[in-house]
Amino acid sequence: MDYIEQEFSVRFDYKVYFTSALFDLSNTLVNDFLKQKNTARNQKIFFVIDQNVANAHPHLAGQISAYFKKYDTVQLIEDILVTPGGEESKNDLSLFDKILDAVNSYKIDRHSYIAAIGGGSVLDVAGYAAAVSHRGIRHIRIPTTTLSQNDSGVGVKNSINYFNKKNFLGTFAPPVAVFNDDRFLPTQSARDWRSGISEAIKVALIKDAVFFDWIESHAGQLVARDLPTMNYLVRRCAELHLDHIAGGDPFEMGSSRPLDFGHWSAHKLEQLTDFEVLHGEAVAMGIALDTMYSSVSGRLPAGKAERVIRLLILLGFDISHPFMQIDENSPVLLGLNEFREHLGGRLTIMLLRDIGRGEEVHEIDTDLLSEASRKITAYAASKAFTV
Amino acid sequence: MDYIEQEFSVRFDYKVYFTSALFDLSNTLVNDFLKQKNTARNQKIFFVIDQNVANAHPHLAGQISAYFKKYDTVQLIEDILVTPGGEESKNDLSLFDKILDAVNSYKIDRHSYIAAIGGGSVLDVAGYAAAVSHRGIRHIRIPTTTLSQNDSGVGVKNSINYFNKKNFLGTFAPPVAVFNDDRFLPTQSARDWRSGISEAIKVALIKDAVFFDWIESHAGQLVARDLPTMNYLVRRCAELHLDHIAGGDPFEMGSSRPLDFGHWSAHKLEQLTDFEVLHGEAVAMGIALDTMYSSVSGRLPAGKAERVIRLLILLGFDISHPFMQIDENSPVLLGLNEFREHLGGRLTIMLLRDIGRGEEVHEIDTDLLSEASRKITAYAASKAFTV
Repeated sequence: MDYIEQEFSVRFDYKVYFTSALFDLSNTLVNDFLKQKNTARNQKIFFVIDQNVANAHPHLAGQISAYFKKYDTVQLIEDILVTPGGEESKNDLSLFDKILDAVNSYKIDRHSYIAAIGGGSVLDVAGYAAAVSHRGIRHIRIPTTTLSQNDSGVGVKNSINYFNKKNFLGTFAPPVAVFNDDRFLPTQSARDWRSGISEAIKVALIKDAVFFDWIESHAGQLVARDLPTMNYLVRRCAELHLDHIAGGDPFEMGSSRPLDFGHWSAHKLEQLTDFEVLHGEAVAMGIALDTMYSSVSGRLPAGKAERVIRLLILLGFDISHPFMQIDENSPVLLGLNEFREHLGGRLTIMLLRDIGRGEEVHEIDTDLLSEASRKITAYAASKAFTV
Repeated sequence: MDYIEQEFSVRFDYKVYFTSALFDLSNTLVNDFLKQKNTARNQKIFFVIDQNVANAHPHLAGQISAYFKKYDTVQLIEDILVTPGGEESKNDLSLFDKILDAVNSYKIDRHSYIAAIGGGSVLDVAGYAAAVSHRGIRHIRIPTTTLSQNDSGVGVKNSINYFNKKNFLGTFAPPVAVFNDDRFLPTQSARDWRSGISEAIKVALIKDAVFFDWIESHAGQLVARDLPTMNYLVRRCAELHLDHIAGGDPFEMGSSRPLDFGHWSAHKLEQLTDFEVLHGEAVAMGIALDTMYSSVSGRLPAGKAERVIRLLILLGFDISHPFMQIDENSPVLLGLNEFREHLGGRLTIMLLRDIGRGEEVHEIDTDLLSEASRKITAYAASKAFTV
């Protein structure tokens, strides 16, 4: 057999910065970063801003403009793209197309930057457009929601929806930097503030019992929108996600995706409700379901499952939904196969062996799942944990 | 400054196999590969075949069908997509869309395969569709032309054209395997047979004087379409390309692209002629231009430049074209900036210091370029080297 063996490694590195008021003229963080990455003359930077953020921060575009007048390491493209955010922005190609148009019109090259400020959806689309333009333009992420600051915005994935399927198109493409600015957190909607907390609960449940205890004991402050408490949650959650990515299989060449605990049903629920249920809200219900399934299938003591349910309810999450009441004909069950199909290989679902310890399984018993969903509905109805 | 540093490396490896009659039932190479990569149940394989190849090998689809009946390690999707090849297939989204449709309809997951049989253009589009579907489906390349077997098909890039710009969209995504089957080489058109030889001359000129001597002394056999000679050329050229990729900057994060010797004008010429000039033909003219420029700018002795021109003419390449007769208003000069823009950073052009030794420069003198183009036109007209 005659062959040439090709083999190489590609190293990726980037920093996730935590800061406040990123574009205040006294904050040199962004400019320091750009100076240090200065590899070419005539570098440009193009900004995409989530409409929700622009509404809550009406001076943001002006601040950015003033910032790059003072710090001219790279040339700001003055035409800042303000765009509707949320899952809808991933469902058609219009935002994707607008970014490609900008790359073409403003001649944004591979040493220039596409910076996106917004929730996870806008970051996903901007990241995808940056990744495929000229085979990869430098991408800076400035996530503004709990969810994007502690989870989706700090990782290596981007995507758009296609064929009505979530994340059907996308790539693995690390950003060159992430800037988490805590000034964006208080201006989120109540739903967005809460919704990202479910990803912190998720990663705590599979990896870090101490962090779960911390979230439990700070539920009151989180509900009261205390910023220092949220900052700690975001930072610890981002850290656990980043450690997981670096220590595991960053480009997911295997079949396992342990960080997707609670996600198989969540993804399907989002789609079934036309994304009226937010990702983090769906994840909270998915966590409830898979935690209770871990209990009824004999893996997790019932008292521990109850702690999880209780915390979700205390934080104000709905833990049940008509689509999550499972019988053998429930459309949400299709999520199991779509989950397998997206990742490929054998069905691999993360469950809980303990709080802070996950366990992967390759089969799900529909009867037990149905029982778990009935128990959750009963908890939701009992109002036993209502605050 | 508060930050979390993220850092990881991703390892890529794949083999480029050299074989004959890949889908003969007695050739177990493909099946052996699939068995060894067998990571999941229900793996599927979807084939895309270049129309030119299907015309020259009318039994190919049937052979593939029989092959996967005998060797059922993975499930063949019987709906084989036969598609027009050539640069045209990269200019609109129709082939790209058809492959996405297949991924969706046939539920091709990340552990399944998209195999493409054809010239570089079909491989580029299929590779791009595979790379972005579900964030990356396994891609097998079966290149059929000189050019794709010795250059584009063995590397890590894919692309489509967009905004009438070559390779505007694409990614770096290594295939899982490349199968170079020499049975495809003799059925290429005379233009395709010849055109890929220019990439071998290119890589020899910048890296391997011994290989250049070999090509020079085997020009007669190459013109006579001697297969063993072509097999050696393909193998050595592929090896030099693969070594370069692994030893350098596989995902081109820097500004340099030494393998693109002769390419800045070639890419532009292709576009200016609506791709009537084939890539390899344009590269031959680009090599002539940059070699002569290396000489008139005092880098390369005139006699060595003449050897290069002579070899190109002996092999039957046109070395000149109206668009390549350069003055300050020549549209081909726009190629310099587009080349810089695509890669980003500083203009970096490879020239020759000797046969087998490249040298990067960051500026091109238009007057000297014009002089070089006039000399080439004179050589072309003199018929001094006509065979």
